[in-house]
Amino acid sequence: MVDGALRAVCDDPDLHLLLVGPTRAAGALIDALDPAQRDRITVRPTHSVVDMADDPSAARAETTVRAAVTAVRAGYADALVSAGATGATVTAAALGLGRWPEVRRPALAAALPAVSGTVVLLDVGGSLEPSPATLARHAALGAAYASVGHGIAVPRVGLLSVGTEPGKGDRARRLADPMLSAAALPGDAHYVGLVEGYDVCLGTRADVVVTDGFTGNVLLKAVEGAYAMAGGTPPGGGAPRAAALLGVAGTVVVCHGAARADDIASGIALAAHLWRRDATERVAALLAGDRTDRTTDTEVRTS
Amino acid sequence: MVDGALRAVCDDPDLHLLLVGPTRAAGALIDALDPAQRDRITVRPTHSVVDMADDPSAARAETTVRAAVTAVRAGYADALVSAGATGATVTAAALGLGRWPEVRRPALAAALPAVSGTVVLLDVGGSLEPSPATLARHAALGAAYASVGHGIAVPRVGLLSVGTEPGKGDRARRLADPMLSAAALPGDAHYVGLVEGYDVCLGTRADVVVTDGFTGNVLLKAVEGAYAMAGGTPPGGGAPRAAALLGVAGTVVVCHGAARADDIASGIALAAHLWRRDATERVAALLAGDRTDRTTDTEVRTS
Repeated sequence: MVDGALRAVCDDPDLHLLLVGPTRAAGALIDALDPAQRDRITVRPTHSVVDMADDPSAARAETTVRAAVTAVRAGYADALVSAGATGATVTAAALGLGRWPEVRRPALAAALPAVSGTVVLLDVGGSLEPSPATLARHAALGAAYASVGHGIAVPRVGLLSVGTEPGKGDRARRLADPMLSAAALPGDAHYVGLVEGYDVCLGTRADVVVTDGFTGNVLLKAVEGAYAMAGGTPPGGGAPRAAALLGVAGTVVVCHGAARADDIASGIALAAHLWRRDATERVAALLAGDRTDRTTDTEVRTS
Repeated sequence: MVDGALRAVCDDPDLHLLLVGPTRAAGALIDALDPAQRDRITVRPTHSVVDMADDPSAARAETTVRAAVTAVRAGYADALVSAGATGATVTAAALGLGRWPEVRRPALAAALPAVSGTVVLLDVGGSLEPSPATLARHAALGAAYASVGHGIAVPRVGLLSVGTEPGKGDRARRLADPMLSAAALPGDAHYVGLVEGYDVCLGTRADVVVTDGFTGNVLLKAVEGAYAMAGGTPPGGGAPRAAALLGVAGTVVVCHGAARADDIASGIALAAHLWRRDATERVAALLAGDRTDRTTDTEVRTS
């Protein structure tokens, strides 16, 4: 964490960090910085952390992640980056920052380099057992995020399954597929139907791939393992170890529990990128515009 | 299919093929063979195939896959290889050959080359929504198959989840994990607990990775996509496109629906390998021995 934070501060001269956690770790970072740069670091000492084995509801107690959420809500920080237990971060962010309208379950979105551009995969661990309606909602979140966060003008949205023919998949997929076919997606996004595992890496058929958090999480880690087996990541980069939390009213990035320094630095850079693009507000506006458009359509049709 | 069958016949001088399907395809294969080799090919003309978009129950009708199963049951063939719709093959094989005791759902097992040896991943599409009890049964099937089919003497069996700490995962995983901890596995296999996506590719912590058929299928295809992105498969080979069907009383190999000639040839070679090792009988015996051992233990304890 310390090495990653140091790297992020050095890489981005406009970045300020509020460190929430043990003072010992913060002290190591401040000591490593040029004295002229030290005023870019503020420390909020907190000692109780949510362990990986703890229940996510432990995030309700006064822990680092809850203190960090409180700092964002109070305006002391613009964005939150955590490499702690995912469930605890999602719970703390949803409780502390609030969820967007019509979002019951926030989703973690990872951006994977593909053959031509980027594939946004969601959910990668925010909601392990989403309902078909939540899968459909995550499709809208992912499409808006792909457009705002990754500059994909006309996102093609696919639902991950075991084949591309309609009807392929388990019960959740068979219910979500027709819901997505009928749903209006934000902006110029459109639904392309069922896609398969290859599409997550290659991006040939979809720019946004929607799945449950269980499948997305194990798949992302399997892709990371495959790149390690293949002797390294492709030129565009490998499987990301930082993901944006979508559906909460704030900029939140979750890093891998086993994140290395460069993963932490990437997560901090992603949070800064999203905040500078005003991504949270713009994604919310795209989703709201989507609802407005549908209302207008209905009014025109019934007049 | 024709190119793959031709390659398999050329690679293995002891192989005989019974081709079940349109005579046109069989004719192309026979024409391509050296006249002296043509008596190694027999043809059973069948015209009705189960399409990828058909319901698996279409396999109950007189289709190629059902005719092939009938040929195995009647002893005209020793093993079945299909690149048709997975659900149809699994249904036809379970109905026509029968299932093993205590196996409600057959599993498709794929063998992936890992850092040191092989990882058996199951299920990769046989049973999309297994119960926790089926996951536990598949663990036993996979362990016996790893030992018999791939020479892994002391298989380490892991349950795929989103983290390694007990309690990580969705409901099915949280229920299956303690069942597996308490279960007796065949031979010298033992359960190592929850594993993650990396472990499927790297094999560091488990030789057998158990998951539901939905997750296994999309994960296997994602790994294939990752190797394509990385510019090729690792030295030991990439993601397999042929999988052994475990839990039915016969040697059945299912090839990828988009299998190329070398995938078909690999699938035929796998079927021949398993039949020559008497794998089906030996896996069944290992599983039966497991039940016998447990009975003996109980008798000793209660005497």
